[in-house]
Amino acid sequence: MAFLQGIAASNGIAIAKAYRLVEPNLSFDKKSIEDTASEVSRFQSAITKSKAELEAIRDRAHIELGADKAAIFEAHLLVLTDPELNGPIEDKIKSEKVNAEAALKETADMFVMMFEQMDNEYMKERAADIRDVTKRVLSHLLGVQLVNPSMIAEEVIIVAEDLTPSDTAQLNRQYVLGFTTDIGGRTSHSAIMARSMEIPAVVGTKTATEEINNGDLVIVDGLKGEVHINPTPELVEEYRNIHQQFEAQKTEWAKLVNEKTLSADGHHVELAANIGTPNDLKGVLANGGEGVGLYRTEFLYMGRDQLPTEEEQFDAYKAVLEGMNGKPVVVRTLDIGGDKELPYLQLPKELNPFLGFRAIRLCLEEQDIFRTQLRALLRASSYGNLKIMFPMIATLDEFREAKAILEDEKQKLIAAGQTVADRIELGIMVEIPSTAVLADQFAKEVDFFSIGTNDLIQYTMAADRMNQRVSYLYQPYSPSILRLVKMVIDAAHAEGKWAGMCGEMAGDETAIPLLLGLGLDEFSMSATSILKARSQIKKLTKSEMESLANQVLNMQTTSQVIEAVNAATK
Amino acid sequence: MAFLQGIAASNGIAIAKAYRLVEPNLSFDKKSIEDTASEVSRFQSAITKSKAELEAIRDRAHIELGADKAAIFEAHLLVLTDPELNGPIEDKIKSEKVNAEAALKETADMFVMMFEQMDNEYMKERAADIRDVTKRVLSHLLGVQLVNPSMIAEEVIIVAEDLTPSDTAQLNRQYVLGFTTDIGGRTSHSAIMARSMEIPAVVGTKTATEEINNGDLVIVDGLKGEVHINPTPELVEEYRNIHQQFEAQKTEWAKLVNEKTLSADGHHVELAANIGTPNDLKGVLANGGEGVGLYRTEFLYMGRDQLPTEEEQFDAYKAVLEGMNGKPVVVRTLDIGGDKELPYLQLPKELNPFLGFRAIRLCLEEQDIFRTQLRALLRASSYGNLKIMFPMIATLDEFREAKAILEDEKQKLIAAGQTVADRIELGIMVEIPSTAVLADQFAKEVDFFSIGTNDLIQYTMAADRMNQRVSYLYQPYSPSILRLVKMVIDAAHAEGKWAGMCGEMAGDETAIPLLLGLGLDEFSMSATSILKARSQIKKLTKSEMESLANQVLNMQTTSQVIEAVNAATK
Repeated sequence: MAFLQGIAASNGIAIAKAYRLVEPNLSFDKKSIEDTASEVSRFQSAITKSKAELEAIRDRAHIELGADKAAIFEAHLLVLTDPELNGPIEDKIKSEKVNAEAALKETADMFVMMFEQMDNEYMKERAADIRDVTKRVLSHLLGVQLVNPSMIAEEVIIVAEDLTPSDTAQLNRQYVLGFTTDIGGRTSHSAIMARSMEIPAVVGTKTATEEINNGDLVIVDGLKGEVHINPTPELVEEYRNIHQQFEAQKTEWAKLVNEKTLSADGHHVELAANIGTPNDLKGVLANGGEGVGLYRTEFLYMGRDQLPTEEEQFDAYKAVLEGMNGKPVVVRTLDIGGDKELPYLQLPKELNPFLGFRAIRLCLEEQDIFRTQLRALLRASSYGNLKIMFPMIATLDEFREAKAILEDEKQKLIAAGQTVADRIELGIMVEIPSTAVLADQFAKEVDFFSIGTNDLIQYTMAADRMNQRVSYLYQPYSPSILRLVKMVIDAAHAEGKWAGMCGEMAGDETAIPLLLGLGLDEFSMSATSILKARSQIKKLTKSEMESLANQVLNMQTTSQVIEAVNAATK
Repeated sequence: MAFLQGIAASNGIAIAKAYRLVEPNLSFDKKSIEDTASEVSRFQSAITKSKAELEAIRDRAHIELGADKAAIFEAHLLVLTDPELNGPIEDKIKSEKVNAEAALKETADMFVMMFEQMDNEYMKERAADIRDVTKRVLSHLLGVQLVNPSMIAEEVIIVAEDLTPSDTAQLNRQYVLGFTTDIGGRTSHSAIMARSMEIPAVVGTKTATEEINNGDLVIVDGLKGEVHINPTPELVEEYRNIHQQFEAQKTEWAKLVNEKTLSADGHHVELAANIGTPNDLKGVLANGGEGVGLYRTEFLYMGRDQLPTEEEQFDAYKAVLEGMNGKPVVVRTLDIGGDKELPYLQLPKELNPFLGFRAIRLCLEEQDIFRTQLRALLRASSYGNLKIMFPMIATLDEFREAKAILEDEKQKLIAAGQTVADRIELGIMVEIPSTAVLADQFAKEVDFFSIGTNDLIQYTMAADRMNQRVSYLYQPYSPSILRLVKMVIDAAHAEGKWAGMCGEMAGDETAIPLLLGLGLDEFSMSATSILKARSQIKKLTKSEMESLANQVLNMQTTSQVIEAVNAATK
C-alpha cells in the first residue's frame, strides 16, 4: 500500500486496476553470443508471441474501430512473417554471433533506411510498418510490454506521465474510470479532459508512473487529489462510502437542473458549459447547462490524418446547435498551434510555442482552413442560436481582418442561395493582456467578450502553467488578474455588450463570489461543475459580493484575496 | 553583386570581408574503398593539416586568451597524434575496406562511448577531446572549414544565423566591424550586442548565411538595414561617403556630450546607458550618459565554465561604480534562464523558456548564487551611487522575499565589519504585465521602477519577439503598451518615486515624444543612441507631448499612434 498526493483535477472517486500508458524502454546492449542456435530460437519465439498479439489487436480493432484500422495490423502481420526480413536476421545471429536484439535492430534499420530513401509513398509506408513491427518484436525479446490502448477491455485507471489530446482520442472511454498523471495542473489538458469525461482525476503526482505497476489496484480520489496504490480492504470500503456520499450530494445538486441561476438577491447569471464534441451535449443537458459557452472546435481536427471537410464540420456544428435547441452556443474558431499540434499541418517547431504562431494568427495566414470552418459555421447557423468567437485576438486589426473574412464568406454563401442566420453574434476570447487593457476600444466593435483565464493568467504572470517550476505564479486570484477581468466586464457593459468567462476560473469555488461581484454575465465551465456552481450562487448576495470585489481589487497579494473571500463567504 | 534587405539593428556603415560563423556540415556516406593504401595516406594528410591548424590555434590562444585556454588545444594535439587511436583507424580502412571518414568516425565513437561510460571525470574530458579532434580531422577529410572565431586576425563582418551571447563572448571585438544575421529583430541579443559594441548591424536578413561566402566583400548598412555582397567599386565609394556624412552628424551630436537633457520648455529628463561589462563605460562617458540605467550582470556569468566568484563580481561592480564617478548606476541582478543559458548550471529544458524558470524566479530558489551576487554588490556599494533592481518580478511576494535576502546579507556584512553604503535604492524591472497592472501597490514598497519593454511587449501581446511568424505583434506603440507604461509612471509619481525605462523603446525616435509626454523620468538606452536622443528631446515641448500622449492613449491601433506622432513632431 502506497500513497501519492497530487492535484484534484476532476471530482469523484474511482477504484480500478491500473493501466500504464507509458512507452517502455526498448534499449539494449549489443552482445556476443556463443550458443547461436538457442539465440535463433529465442528470436523465433519472440516472433510467435508478436504474431499472437498482433492477431488479437487486429481482431479487436476490427470490432471497435472498423476494417480500415484493422488493415494496418494486417500489414504488420505480413511484415512480421516476411522471410526476406527474418532470414537475414537469423543469418546475422549465426554469422556475426550477436544477440537477437542487435541482429533485429541493425537489419531492420537497414531496410527502413533503404525504403525511406525511395521516392515512393508505398515504400515509405512499408518503412513505417517495419519500424512498428521491430518495436513489437524487441519488446518480446526484452520481456517488456508495449502500450496498446485500443486493447483495453476492462475497467481501468489510466496512469501516464501526461495525457495529450491525441492520447485521449485513442482511448475507449467506456473502460476508463479515472486518470492519474505525473505532471499537469488543474488547467492541463488531461484535467480538462477528465472533467469533460466526468471521471475522477488526480494530476501532478510527480511519481505515479514510477510507483504504479500495471494491474495494481488504485483509488483515485479526485476530491482531495489523493491516489492510493494497492489499498487495504478497509480503505477500499471507506472509499466506497465516500463515493456514495459524493453521489448523494450530486443527487441533491441535480434538483437544480431545471432552475435558473439566481443569486440570493435575485441577480441572474448564465451558467454554460465548455464542450469539445457533440457527444458532450448529453452531459451539458443532464447538468442543467443554460448554453454552450465554449465549443472547442479543434477536437474535430485531431486524431486524424487530414483536415476535416466542410461537410464534416457542418454536421458537427449542426448537431450541437440542434442539440442545444435554441440555447446559445458559442463556437470558438480553430485554436491550433502552441501545445496543440496537428501532425498533418507540419507547423514549424517554435522556441516558445505558447507565444507563437497559433489560433487566429495561424487562421489569418492559412485562410483556406479558416474559410472552410467559417462556411461550415455559417451554413449551420440557421439550426440554432450560434455565436462565433475568435481566439488569441491581440489587436483590433486582427479582429477586423477576421470579421471581414467571415463577412466575405457570408455574402458568397447568400449569393449562392444558402440560408444563413440573420444575426450571428461575433465576439472574441480575451486571453491576451493587451486585449484586456484595450477592452474599451474592442467593446465598440465586438458583440461580446469571453475571458479565457487559462491563457490570460499565464501571459499576465509570464509563467507557463504547464511548467512545474513556475506554477506557483499561476494565480487566478491575483489582484492584477482581477483588475484585468474588471476592465473587460466594465468595458463590455459600457457599450451594452455582455462578458463571459470560459477559463477554468469560471467554475472555481473561490473565484465565483468575486466574478459575481465584478458583474460577470456568463460563466462557462465543465458541465460537471454547473450544478455545484448554481447551488453556490443561490447562497451568495450580489451586492455583498460587489463590496468584496471592490475591496480585493486594492489588495496586494493573492493570499490576501483568498483570505478575504473565505472570510466573506465562509 | 547581390543585395539583402534586413532590419537595421545598429547605426552606421561597415565595409569588410565576410567571416561566416556557421558550423559546417560534417555528414558523409560510408563507402567501400578498393585502393586502401591511398585512403590511408588521405587520412594521414588530414591528420597533418589538423596538426598544423591546431598548433596555430594553440599559439594564438596563448597570446590572446592565456595559458589556460591554450592547454585545451595542447590536449587536442596529444589526442590527434595518439597511435592508440590512429592505429585502429588505419587498420579499419585496410581490413574493412571503408573510407577514412567512416573508419575515423566509427573508431572514435567507440572510444568516446568507452570513456564516457567510465565513472571518472578525467576520462570524460578525454571523450570530449576525442569528439572535438574527430570533428577537425573530418573537416579536413571533407574539405570544409570549421569555425574558429578565436583565429580571426583581420577586420571582418560576422555572418551568422543568429548570435548568442556566448558566441559574441568568444569574438575578438577589435576585429569585428559589423554583423549580419539571418534571424532576429531590433531587440534580439545580436542587435543589442551590436549597439553596445557600437558597430553597424543588420539582422533578420533571412538568407545572409546562404548568400554570403567566406571572404566576400560585404557592406553592412545599419542605417537602412541593407547588406550588399561583393558591391561594385562605385557602390563602395558611395558608401564611404554615407559613412562620412554619418560621422559628421555624430560630430554634431557630440557637441551635446556635456549638456543636460532638457526639452524645449525646460523639462529635465535623465538619459542613461545600458551596459554589459565595465568595458562599456568608455562608450557611456564618450556619449554623454548621465548614468547607467541598466547594468546587465549576466555577462559576468557567460563564456566561462563556472560561476564567477564574489571577488570577481566585486571587482566588476566596483570598476563600474568608480568609473561612473558618483553618477547613478542601476545594477540588475542576474537574469539568466529563458534564452540565456549557462552550460555549467544545467537548467532543465523548458517547453516555453520565455515563460519559464528564469531571473528572480531562479535566484530565489538558487539562493547561493543570488546571495553571492548581493554580497558583491553590497561591498561595492560604497564606491559610487549604486541602485539595485530585480528582474522579472511578478508579485509583491517575490519582491519582498528578494528584499529580505538582500537585507539579511547586508546585516551580516555590517556585523562582519564591512563598509556598506547607507542608502541603496531598491527597484524592480517592470516587464511582466501583472506588475504593470498592480504598479500602484508595488510603488508603496519599491524605490523606483525600470520598465523593461522588450519583455513587457512580448508578454502583453503574447508574441515571442524572436519568432518571425508573430513578430508583427511586437508593437511598442500599441495603445495597450502605452497604457501600461502610463500606469507605471503615474503609480511611481503618486508615491514620490521615479520611473525609468531600459528597454529598446527608450531610445526609439518614435517612442521618445510619447514617453516624454507620459512623464518618464529616466531613459536608458544603448550608449550610441544617447546623443541623438538628447538632440531630439531638445526640440520637443513637454506640454505638447503630454497632449499627444493623452490623445494616443485612446486610439485603437498602432498605426494610428504612429501617424499621430509623425503629425505632431514632423
